[in-house]
Amino acid sequence: MKNISISPNGTEFQIPTDAESVLELKKLKEITGEQKKLGRKIVAVQGMGFVGCVMAAVVADAVDENGKFLYFVHGQQRASARSFWKVPVINTGVPPVSSSDAEVPEIFHRTVVEKKTLRATWLNYAYKVADIVVVDIQLDATKPAFGDASQGYCDMSAFRDGMKTLGKYISPECLILVETTVPPGTCENVVKPVVEEEFTKRGIDIKKTPPLIAHSYERVMPGAKYVSSIRDFWRVFSGVNEKSKYVAREFLNNILDTEKYPLTELDNTNASELSKVMENSYRATNIALTLEWAKCAEKIGVDIHKVRAAIRKRKGTHDNLLRPSLGVGGYCLTKDPVLANWAMDAIFHIDEKLNIAINSVNINDTMPLHTIDLIKEEYSELKDVRIAVLGVSYLEDLGDTRHSPSETLIKFLNENWAIVKTHDPYVEYWPEMENIPIQKSLKEALKGTNVIIFAVGHSEYMELEPEKVLKMSEGTPLIIDCSNFLSDEKIKKYLKLGCKVKGVGKGHIKNLR
Amino acid sequence: MKNISISPNGTEFQIPTDAESVLELKKLKEITGEQKKLGRKIVAVQGMGFVGCVMAAVVADAVDENGKFLYFVHGQQRASARSFWKVPVINTGVPPVSSSDAEVPEIFHRTVVEKKTLRATWLNYAYKVADIVVVDIQLDATKPAFGDASQGYCDMSAFRDGMKTLGKYISPECLILVETTVPPGTCENVVKPVVEEEFTKRGIDIKKTPPLIAHSYERVMPGAKYVSSIRDFWRVFSGVNEKSKYVAREFLNNILDTEKYPLTELDNTNASELSKVMENSYRATNIALTLEWAKCAEKIGVDIHKVRAAIRKRKGTHDNLLRPSLGVGGYCLTKDPVLANWAMDAIFHIDEKLNIAINSVNINDTMPLHTIDLIKEEYSELKDVRIAVLGVSYLEDLGDTRHSPSETLIKFLNENWAIVKTHDPYVEYWPEMENIPIQKSLKEALKGTNVIIFAVGHSEYMELEPEKVLKMSEGTPLIIDCSNFLSDEKIKKYLKLGCKVKGVGKGHIKNLR
Repeated sequence: MKNISISPNGTEFQIPTDAESVLELKKLKEITGEQKKLGRKIVAVQGMGFVGCVMAAVVADAVDENGKFLYFVHGQQRASARSFWKVPVINTGVPPVSSSDAEVPEIFHRTVVEKKTLRATWLNYAYKVADIVVVDIQLDATKPAFGDASQGYCDMSAFRDGMKTLGKYISPECLILVETTVPPGTCENVVKPVVEEEFTKRGIDIKKTPPLIAHSYERVMPGAKYVSSIRDFWRVFSGVNEKSKYVAREFLNNILDTEKYPLTELDNTNASELSKVMENSYRATNIALTLEWAKCAEKIGVDIHKVRAAIRKRKGTHDNLLRPSLGVGGYCLTKDPVLANWAMDAIFHIDEKLNIAINSVNINDTMPLHTIDLIKEEYSELKDVRIAVLGVSYLEDLGDTRHSPSETLIKFLNENWAIVKTHDPYVEYWPEMENIPIQKSLKEALKGTNVIIFAVGHSEYMELEPEKVLKMSEGTPLIIDCSNFLSDEKIKKYLKLGCKVKGVGKGHIKNLR
Repeated sequence: MKNISISPNGTEFQIPTDAESVLELKKLKEITGEQKKLGRKIVAVQGMGFVGCVMAAVVADAVDENGKFLYFVHGQQRASARSFWKVPVINTGVPPVSSSDAEVPEIFHRTVVEKKTLRATWLNYAYKVADIVVVDIQLDATKPAFGDASQGYCDMSAFRDGMKTLGKYISPECLILVETTVPPGTCENVVKPVVEEEFTKRGIDIKKTPPLIAHSYERVMPGAKYVSSIRDFWRVFSGVNEKSKYVAREFLNNILDTEKYPLTELDNTNASELSKVMENSYRATNIALTLEWAKCAEKIGVDIHKVRAAIRKRKGTHDNLLRPSLGVGGYCLTKDPVLANWAMDAIFHIDEKLNIAINSVNINDTMPLHTIDLIKEEYSELKDVRIAVLGVSYLEDLGDTRHSPSETLIKFLNENWAIVKTHDPYVEYWPEMENIPIQKSLKEALKGTNVIIFAVGHSEYMELEPEKVLKMSEGTPLIIDCSNFLSDEKIKKYLKLGCKVKGVGKGHIKNLR
């Protein structure tokens, strides 16, 4: 077993020893006692991931009408090799995530260093003293067969262990507020029985003090409004009983801007859990719909992007229509329909399928193959074809590579023995594709290439002039625009310079001269 | 052959004789000559249906900046037994459609009687003198197998005949503006070759004067803003060549409020045609998505309508999410995905399927069977069960019954030997279900019934108090709410009064007391 945990910038941190844990416990007791004396409630946030760490900071930043801090927050992160580094990093006032949002470093510095209302720890003792535990454990879907999301499932064992830990430590009056996106039914059918079992073992009468469990999902938008998207936005919640709802409502009203964005309370946690996965399924479906029409548009001389713009003029009824691209990535749209579809059978044992949503995931997951088809119209054999993939993250002007469609694209290009070079101004290291080097220099990526795939619409690529691209590539490569950022004018320039140009949903190119 | 044509209110009109047609021709020549002298352009509208007649009135109502009328409109309607009555009716200044929009009778009276810029005729001579022909011929999709829209097709023979007529009569400089929702590819691949063939027969050099053909689809909303939805709303258009685009642009700018709603010009007519069927497919898909989730919600205690409201708070990204109901009706959402899917093979000969849209049509078309399933949970055998269906139109507070989901519902109820009574305050006569009487009295419809299906959310039903309903029904029937208009308070009342209550997407009812 490794006894170090390495942060993304390479700093090594020793996993704490038992002796250190004894000292930490002493410290936790002291701090908690002081904070309680100050009249603050104690909140533990379980999991210092992408959502949990910022949520912890938002809670720690909450004040009452007199500007008094309401909560002290223990940010709990297990002492694993993968993630322990977050504890010491947070405790210096530095966020454990990188973001383009300037508020992220600010809020960590303010809460950890200035106000001292946030502190990370690896001890479960944090739960023992908590009035509220916010659950931000990561929960993934597994799709064992590429292109068949109906086989997708959710391994809940780590989540269940997390709930067991809470059941062992929390006071009977503590609210468990699940913020993780979970399969519908999780609070009622997983969290509740697990916690009840642990309570009963501890001699707590669950008839008298039934566990307090609520669900309220985040709607985090990565990017420039990361903190604000947690704090200043619409929230949905519910609880497994009236008291849970009451405590959750009070807590959310304290930490969020619910004056501007009033809370939506649903009947039960099934509804709140369903709401989250449904809203992401809605988006996944709208992308899949557009992808199918984009493929048709390519063959009948139509620019689907202009059609989309025409349709979206109808605000309020048609403006949610999403755009086609290389494919769909990220953490939510790729998995949430799977969580929902799986839950109907695995959690509720009912015979209902969410076919539209699941078929949409299939269309979205396999969409990068369409770009390969576009190349194959020019190169029937991909072996030894030199291909530059520009952009490996899943969204423009972001460095997030989770489930990026470029990953699928490159895997299939490699399987076909193409020679692939990649470039992304926002990604230095690609955790999901460790063996794929990312060129720092665009020129290096483009030099001598046969095909340039504009995979992601990063601003840097948007601004590139055709002459410059061709100078770097030293030839007239096939240009493929996956993200609709070549204007008709630019396409005409490429054509004039002797390139062939293709684009996802851009069937009108054949009529451009 | 019948020689009379009967209007909906029962008035009989003689189909014109040859002698009458000779007189009409003389009149047409006179009027056209006068109107040309007044400097007005001549527009013929082909087809006085739901869209055509109001479009004709909008064109006839258009004025320039000095308040001078720009166009004289011949509303052309063939002298068929089914539709000839529209000609004499329009010519008295009365609209041939009923509508809740007060502007409909106003605009007909103004243009026909006061300004005399609109007149209906059955003669093709209208095309001969036209500067612009607006095509509003009805074009349907046929779905030969219930629940399998992939087999759907479009019989274009009548439309093709209409285009042939135009090719025979119009001047080479006349613009054909297709407003009908057509399968993508129609202008390029049907209208153009048909007209070119007729032009060539007439000795017109189609190289020198290629036919002018454009497409611009309407976005008519039946109801209180019928006229305004044609005139004061976003429009998309394109043409088969530059001159067609130019003439169409000028015409649309003259007749529509394009200052407030600027025109969207697309690259070609394929794009414009695709745009229309895509925007309706988008809506059909969003309904189908919700229907699948609604069925799940019912089984897991969730009110999908409250979930939908929670999701729709996210304006601009999630507020197009549509609501579940008995099913999907109307003229557009039920057929437009079929037109598109069929066109890919039949018109473009390409191997692309629009599966998401087509599967959505299947889900929507078969949805009324779900309400039957809800009844079957209480009555395993529907034989002799007395069922009241409240609402037979396809939309609340409208009398339009085209492709109404109540039609499917009642057909299946009848097949199962249930005893069905229907009621609808907006429908006196149901053209698609001539043998089904519609009770005038709600009391008569409800008396002694075992099941009440609130099928359509008409205001009259919304206001009904449970006590009153049960008094009329003289018992405690099963209540089924298909349109989410029973509030939780009302449901509780029904439960208290001894009824069972179920609802589409309303799984929370089982937890209400």
